[in-house]
Amino acid sequence: MTVIRHEVGPMMSRAVEHNGTVYLAGLTAADASAGIEGQTQQILDHIDQLLALAGTSKSNLLTCMIYVTDIRDRPAMNKVYQAWFDPKNKPTRACVEVNLAGDTRIEIVVTAAK
Amino acid sequence: MTVIRHEVGPMMSRAVEHNGTVYLAGLTAADASAGIEGQTQQILDHIDQLLALAGTSKSNLLTCMIYVTDIRDRPAMNKVYQAWFDPKNKPTRACVEVNLAGDTRIEIVVTAAK
Amino acid sequence: MTVIRHEVGPMMSRAVEHNGTVYLAGLTAADASAGIEGQTQQILDHIDQLLALAGTSKSNLLTCMIYVTDIRDRPAMNKVYQAWFDPKNKPTRACVEVNLAGDTRIEIVVTAAK
Repeated sequence: MTVIRHEVGPMMSRAVEHNGTVYLAGLTAADASAGIEGQTQQILDHIDQLLALAGTSKSNLLTCMIYVTDIRDRPAMNKVYQAWFDPKNKPTRACVEVNLAGDTRIEIVVTAAK
Repeated sequence: MTVIRHEVGPMMSRAVEHNGTVYLAGLTAADASAGIEGQTQQILDHIDQLLALAGTSKSNLLTCMIYVTDIRDRPAMNKVYQAWFDPKNKPTRACVEVNLAGDTRIEIVVTAAK
Repeated sequence: MTVIRHEVGPMMSRAVEHNGTVYLAGLTAADASAGIEGQTQQILDHIDQLLALAGTSKSNLLTCMIYVTDIRDRPAMNKVYQAWFDPKNKPTRACVEVNLAGDTRIEIVVTAAK
């Protein structure tokens, strides 16, 4: 059993590899002053970076869990999300409304194969 | 690494297989006019269908994450849930209250072995 | 495919092993009269016990999903969490605010390699 950890910070690893699966941390936008579209795009860009670091890509996504602070933001988020994913390799998905800290409006957790 | 995707729609795959694990999307009731019992039953029926599509069944469930819009719905939901699962092969479980869209009162995400 | 289940109760298994991965149920404090620090510590102690039961430990944690009923409890929770995890082997993490039953202020779901 080998576990590989990437982008290790004070509180968590941003990506962890084990047994052919890559788990990413809950990602939020670095610039929370952006609206829902901007925050979503920042997160998706970060997902791309982390998956690359772990030797995989969005074409290998398995699951996507999305937390938004207002379920009415879903259509705007979906537009950015649909422009991003690999249409031939869509992960599973769930989207629920929760509360998040400060101005953060969305947090995303994905897993991918590698 | 082979990833197999089932019930692929515009926004997601409803089931994804990888490395002996099957991941289902967050499922909600097609008919949201049903009460909590009816919505739960619709979701569990859909889970059965998707697991069969992926060549497995509820007896191989690993995890079950339940989102309800009112934590007080839990006893009614539990009754339907307990009548459904394989008593010899219970998955892990968590249940939290979030907000969901429209009249949806429950969303469930499961994973299974195959 | 072998699935091993531990601490099987009326509603769920508290830990499930499959294919080198251990999945724990959503854990809450047995004594919910404790504050956020006390509830967090009770859960982390239970995680240690369950991981040991499954033949692994916190040094092999992959992911950690934290649900709190007040996002402002996060700093106090973090202090207990940071004193507990293996600083050389941090899992991924996400923390969102939801509602939970009764006086429960925190629920944690982890996965680990074994």
